[in-house]
Amino acid sequence: MMLGVLGGMGPMATVDFMGKVIRNTPAACDQDHIEMVVCSATSVPDRTAAILDQGRDPLPAMLDALKRLERSGATCIAIPCNTAHHWHGELQARTHVPILHIVDALADALAERGLKGTTIGVLATDGTVRAGIYQRRLAKRGFACAMPDAAGQAEVMRAIRLVKAGDVGAATTILSREAATLVTKGCSQVAMACTEIPLALAAADGELKPRLLDPTDMLARACVRSCLATLDKPERRVA
Amino acid sequence: MMLGVLGGMGPMATVDFMGKVIRNTPAACDQDHIEMVVCSATSVPDRTAAILDQGRDPLPAMLDALKRLERSGATCIAIPCNTAHHWHGELQARTHVPILHIVDALADALAERGLKGTTIGVLATDGTVRAGIYQRRLAKRGFACAMPDAAGQAEVMRAIRLVKAGDVGAATTILSREAATLVTKGCSQVAMACTEIPLALAAADGELKPRLLDPTDMLARACVRSCLATLDKPERRVA
Repeated sequence: MMLGVLGGMGPMATVDFMGKVIRNTPAACDQDHIEMVVCSATSVPDRTAAILDQGRDPLPAMLDALKRLERSGATCIAIPCNTAHHWHGELQARTHVPILHIVDALADALAERGLKGTTIGVLATDGTVRAGIYQRRLAKRGFACAMPDAAGQAEVMRAIRLVKAGDVGAATTILSREAATLVTKGCSQVAMACTEIPLALAAADGELKPRLLDPTDMLARACVRSCLATLDKPERRVA
Repeated sequence: MMLGVLGGMGPMATVDFMGKVIRNTPAACDQDHIEMVVCSATSVPDRTAAILDQGRDPLPAMLDALKRLERSGATCIAIPCNTAHHWHGELQARTHVPILHIVDALADALAERGLKGTTIGVLATDGTVRAGIYQRRLAKRGFACAMPDAAGQAEVMRAIRLVKAGDVGAATTILSREAATLVTKGCSQVAMACTEIPLALAAADGELKPRLLDPTDMLARACVRSCLATLDKPERRVA
């Protein structure tokens, strides 16, 4: 088993994802951990810009990274970028290696928690919202979504860009406010549906914290389960 | 330019190193960041055990990861594991891609700070100490080294294993004590010369903090300089 990570979108979100894979792996020494091969493909063009018809197609650069992961021996692939999942179907069609879907990881976790029928707040990029990545996939699994209004969405997008530029503190304030607004509007839980957001909301206050869902962490757990399931070591399986 | 990371020794130290590369890169958006390909080669046998003649040779597994980095297009390689540098010469002899040396990165930073002639405390694995990785390379550059006594070294080794098993808190206490002892013995600065140690000493108290040298961070900075120097974008060069 080798986990392939199609990353770099952004680079710090990839680091966050890798940390979550490691922390979710039952291990006492280096050799207990899952082997990973990671492409931090930072030159992939902006995904939101492409969805909004304002930028270059990121698919060729993502396919190039995918092929490098495949050649390096990846047996299971994850993409720690929600917006990039707009191309999940096209990427999956070009490889026999399973690419886990971040929204499926969230839906599985919500179903396990018995949250069917609730409305999930979604903080995401303009691209993720416009492409309907969460709305469609969650609807199929019995969950409704709510997003910020136009002004709130612009603020979310501004905060995501601040994280990508390294100004996490300013982003924390903005995203905490937008998450709280979604809770006020009736969302019992709010998904941090852009992989930059957990970097900023790790510092969210105590009241907001239990309302936040982290799809990055759920994808990491799904990867650990998938990789360890292929091992013949039942004592290492994750509950 | 593409930075290759021969990692997984341990996995969390690789994540720490990647974060330091990203934080040391002047960037306003994803596309400004350095492309990386990372092998988290956790199955590489224990380096210290091999140096102490108690374990399997890690070189074949490291060479395998090196070749995968080379095939993925790495133009510069870093190994965020101090003990693995015992095999630096053998690895470098097998590839034309330059492999930056973590002790050179430290020596360059010390020389820049005008610290020639001082004695540097070294907290490292038994393997790194026994192989003389820091002692020999720093002596050539005009620095002396001091290590903990046998009892202290055993404590350092215990703390490193605690970090690898995820118990960072317990390791912080032990490593803070051993670093303080080296300061008492006349070391003005103490190098965290195992890549697990900065993970634990990130929480070190205020008095100790300015005494600590982080070779992981220095290696990350050297990689950023090396990768950005190959670009024709002078405004992005690191000072």
